[in-house]
Amino acid sequence: MKQRRRKRLTADEYAQGILAGDRIILSRAITLIESALPEDNELAETVLEKVLPQTGNSLRIGITGVPGVGKSTFIESFGKQLTSIGKKVAVLTVDPSSQLSKGSILGDKTRMEELAHDPLAYIRPSASGSALGGVNAKTRESMLLCEAAGFEAIIIETVGVGQSETTVHGLVDFFLLLMLAGAGDELQGIKRGIMEMADTIAITKADGDNLKQSKMAQREYKNALHLFPPSETEWYPKVLTCSSLEKTGLDKIWETIVEYESHMKTKGFFNRKRQKQNLNWMHETIHQQLEQRFYHHPAVNKQMSTMEQDVMNGEQVAIKAAKQLLELYFKS
Amino acid sequence: MKQRRRKRLTADEYAQGILAGDRIILSRAITLIESALPEDNELAETVLEKVLPQTGNSLRIGITGVPGVGKSTFIESFGKQLTSIGKKVAVLTVDPSSQLSKGSILGDKTRMEELAHDPLAYIRPSASGSALGGVNAKTRESMLLCEAAGFEAIIIETVGVGQSETTVHGLVDFFLLLMLAGAGDELQGIKRGIMEMADTIAITKADGDNLKQSKMAQREYKNALHLFPPSETEWYPKVLTCSSLEKTGLDKIWETIVEYESHMKTKGFFNRKRQKQNLNWMHETIHQQLEQRFYHHPAVNKQMSTMEQDVMNGEQVAIKAAKQLLELYFKS
Repeated sequence: MKQRRRKRLTADEYAQGILAGDRIILSRAITLIESALPEDNELAETVLEKVLPQTGNSLRIGITGVPGVGKSTFIESFGKQLTSIGKKVAVLTVDPSSQLSKGSILGDKTRMEELAHDPLAYIRPSASGSALGGVNAKTRESMLLCEAAGFEAIIIETVGVGQSETTVHGLVDFFLLLMLAGAGDELQGIKRGIMEMADTIAITKADGDNLKQSKMAQREYKNALHLFPPSETEWYPKVLTCSSLEKTGLDKIWETIVEYESHMKTKGFFNRKRQKQNLNWMHETIHQQLEQRFYHHPAVNKQMSTMEQDVMNGEQVAIKAAKQLLELYFKS
Repeated sequence: MKQRRRKRLTADEYAQGILAGDRIILSRAITLIESALPEDNELAETVLEKVLPQTGNSLRIGITGVPGVGKSTFIESFGKQLTSIGKKVAVLTVDPSSQLSKGSILGDKTRMEELAHDPLAYIRPSASGSALGGVNAKTRESMLLCEAAGFEAIIIETVGVGQSETTVHGLVDFFLLLMLAGAGDELQGIKRGIMEMADTIAITKADGDNLKQSKMAQREYKNALHLFPPSETEWYPKVLTCSSLEKTGLDKIWETIVEYESHMKTKGFFNRKRQKQNLNWMHETIHQQLEQRFYHHPAVNKQMSTMEQDVMNGEQVAIKAAKQLLELYFKS
């Protein structure tokens, strides 16, 4: 490996490399996308534009679950399941812990060593930048590049405790929630509302002594989901069990995803959902930028914490405080 | 009643009238708040500021449920239940259908005739303006005026199908979801995520032939809620049954609300929730204003639909479209 600074590629070189499925160029392109430098941003956008017509042909799968549910092990086994039937799989992690490996192409790879060495698989820890769009846009763009590189299934991993799963839900076609058997303490930490986002729930570690309990949990969740209002797509979330250790139930999860895709496509919801996601992406980017400019404005910034304190304590009407801050912003 | 134009009151006259519990002045003040005229807005804000120290002393209760669940009948019976124990009750509706009676003090009143004639009750259909803050801010300000006028329980009604219940959830201390027995078609139309917002679910029309089914539904929902992740407040949503016809279960609902209040106050969550709501109110007002300015900007407005179309069809990267629109906005 060369130690000297690599030659900067042109947009065409990036695009051609990506479209040819060159992983090294793909990785460099993702790094470019994650860069905070304005000149990198511009180049990244040009690359993205060039490959855009070749995107959209994968199944985008979001996977979430609290730490301890066995996400990495599941993704590794599930990824292997897909490559075993010849599918090209890319895994993007937006796990906050992967911030540590920012910009590196190692990081999470060590967690999924077997999958990482699979020639049909590609694993990439997503750095969580905060430039135009933050995690959201970066992950979405990385996903598009992976699609252009020919990956047929893109797995986006997130932890089920913060804001990120709402973001990921807005990126993917299918949202899989991993759960553990036992509806007690294990649920602690899962954010409210996530269960209603899930297109399917998979109960992990359904093996050995845990099998009976997992089957029971499956019945319980089935009953619970039955009480949820159905979505307009008329897709009824399934509850499945699986074991990453014994490699059981993984085929059934893939079958369910394929069934979901076909259901959504027949009903016309598949593309409509993606169109809506694209539109949301644009508007979210706009909102983020408008807010960033406002909140970083020196005069606004200076007053903000006093205003917040007054409003919180009920000493100032929120709407009036807002107006005053807006005046500061628009008048300078 | 005088037919000629009423004399314009001063901010002090408004404030004094409201604090004295004068309903006519309260109604006029709410109309003032809902007004789209800038000079009214300014006067309304001054009034609000003057009465602000006298607000915050009510229990704010949000009630939602799909059409057909019997919301009006429930609120009437529940309101009467509260006035029967001496509580002063104000009802604000943000039901979209009440837009028809915008500015009028009639409208929804006819739906709750008995309660409307109760000297301890005050019913006001909230007009849904779209000026600074929209329904959100208007309803919140109306609520504050009602508090200043001495009402001890403020009921805010909304239909459970749109965006409004999220807004109302951000306004109230306690969120009550009305449901019908039978987990089938009745659920159609309820927005996903609402169930997880509810502090209590009440199954309505639990009377006559429907009683047995309602008790069964109660058990089912209890089991389902048990599977939900607990909130950080450690309040476990209750599932109750009631009949507006036979006036049963209404006392139990009020007891539950009181129990909730005491739970939240003991744990310190009551005020923390209100502080957070105040802060959100300020930031939401800011976001709305920033967006309004942006989306109404002539150059942006002119390009918007083309951009949206291109982004939806995947012909343009969302992030690039956003950037172009932002440039148009900031450069002129």
